Amino acid sequence: MDIEAARRWFLSLQDSIVAGLEAIDGKPFRRDEWTRPEGGGGVSRLIEDGDVLERGGVNFSDVRGSRLPPSATASRPELVGRSWEAMGVSLVLHPWNPCAPTVHLNVRMFVAQKQGAEPVWWFGGGMDLTPYYGFEEDAVHFHRTCRDALAPFGTDLHAKYKRWCDDYFYLKHRREPRGVGGIFYDDLAEGGFERCFALTRAVGEHFLPAYGPILLRRKDLPYGERERDFQCYRRGRYVEFNLVWDRGTLFGLQSNGRTEAILMSLPPLVKWRYDWKPAPGSPEERLYTDFLVPRNWVDGGS
Amino acid sequence: MDIEAARRWFLSLQDSIVAGLEAIDGKPFRRDEWTRPEGGGGVSRLIEDGDVLERGGVNFSDVRGSRLPPSATASRPELVGRSWEAMGVSLVLHPWNPCAPTVHLNVRMFVAQKQGAEPVWWFGGGMDLTPYYGFEEDAVHFHRTCRDALAPFGTDLHAKYKRWCDDYFYLKHRREPRGVGGIFYDDLAEGGFERCFALTRAVGEHFLPAYGPILLRRKDLPYGERERDFQCYRRGRYVEFNLVWDRGTLFGLQSNGRTEAILMSLPPLVKWRYDWKPAPGSPEERLYTDFLVPRNWVDGGS
Repeated sequence: MDIEAARRWFLSLQDSIVAGLEAIDGKPFRRDEWTRPEGGGGVSRLIEDGDVLERGGVNFSDVRGSRLPPSATASRPELVGRSWEAMGVSLVLHPWNPCAPTVHLNVRMFVAQKQGAEPVWWFGGGMDLTPYYGFEEDAVHFHRTCRDALAPFGTDLHAKYKRWCDDYFYLKHRREPRGVGGIFYDDLAEGGFERCFALTRAVGEHFLPAYGPILLRRKDLPYGERERDFQCYRRGRYVEFNLVWDRGTLFGLQSNGRTEAILMSLPPLVKWRYDWKPAPGSPEERLYTDFLVPRNWVDGGS
Repeated sequence: MDIEAARRWFLSLQDSIVAGLEAIDGKPFRRDEWTRPEGGGGVSRLIEDGDVLERGGVNFSDVRGSRLPPSATASRPELVGRSWEAMGVSLVLHPWNPCAPTVHLNVRMFVAQKQGAEPVWWFGGGMDLTPYYGFEEDAVHFHRTCRDALAPFGTDLHAKYKRWCDDYFYLKHRREPRGVGGIFYDDLAEGGFERCFALTRAVGEHFLPAYGPILLRRKDLPYGERERDFQCYRRGRYVEFNLVWDRGTLFGLQSNGRTEAILMSLPPLVKWRYDWKPAPGSPEERLYTDFLVPRNWVDGGS
């Protein structure tokens, strides 16, 4: 297990993704470095009012503690009292154009250490897509790129991680998926460190190939007030998921994390409206009927 | 203990508050009745795009279950297995004018029953004010009206319930109070049903006297883009509190409550912006330095 190699890779992934996004947007991301009183710190890369991205963050963080919190050891009693380190890259992008989907990526590594014992480590990660006006070819491309990332590591992995993503990014209080999904995994240690690190690298490095082409072909499509309004309304669901259900966000906010970095996932402009429903047959209704439903996107959405 | 009398009063409180608000706004509230598959239901009264209120809800609900959930009996093991009924009025108002504060009121009653045993009941409630551009006279008036509501029930009550409110409506992840506070209480059974019901009636019936005059004198003050922008930014804190910290909201969302009624508390238009800080000496900074700090408002804000 090589924590330094992991740190180097996470930082270089952040650099690559930011460079790729800057090339598409045309405006630079700002950079904020921070340290955490309890240990560790991070580098936040942020954009607001870009030419393509209305708001987005690509954050590296490496936080440490002397004792695992009870929430982390409840299901792993053998880790009680260990020191810990959590490191990763987390990203959410909110484009201006309602035809361009919001996207999320997270790749992370967790290590729990104790003097005189082998370190215990695991990886987690995933990416998922949240369209406002859906395009089947975008969902198919995104899912196929996720499948390609995982293909070298086992033929059954993609189906498993896609299902895990669908289960995780689900708004129970709306009985609605957050978007068209992607992949999600956690507690990955099977096959040893090199394999799990390689799998996580593959996921991270497939982010730009998965999302870049979608952003490029949607960023300049025409839209008006109506599409913007629907986008702002649907963004409310993103807020609801992240603040009510997302374990990562809640853990960060409730454990003295860096609030401004964590909440970069929230959209710049959001609307709530009582009991709103799309008009039958409208493009807005198509999001609900054709995209926020379980579909086998790698096979073309059948 | 008279549940029917409580229900009648809650429903009449809703009627009175809606009538008072309609008189100020000039537009009618819509009415939505609903039933809950597991038992009970409610009446939602809502306004959107009013002349004074941008969005607001005054909701009555009366929900029941055959067994108290574990979260409710963790600290009251004697209630395990009892059927329950929770009834109350909950209100949040978001005015258009950034000089007019957002306000929240909740009054509620809880009853746990079992064959052959005395019913166990308690009351809870409170109201609190969240200004964007603060006015000392508004905070003083609101707190004095809260004090007056509680005065007949004990001289120490107001101080105790004000502190409880400050503790409850606090955003730990921002190290910031939600607003200028008010009063909050829960688990109230001391002194018997008649006293506790009377106290709760007094709180509910002091809502219009507490908030009405503030809304009337602020609703037509001039404002522009800048004030509107700050209001939308600060409304983000309201969303964060309600979705991350508010036990009532979370209980509702996680227990198959009526999502659209619960989320009427969320503002119609919200903005998030990275690491934003008010300019030194600006009116926006005054909110942080003069209002989002502990002050003894009943004594004039000393």
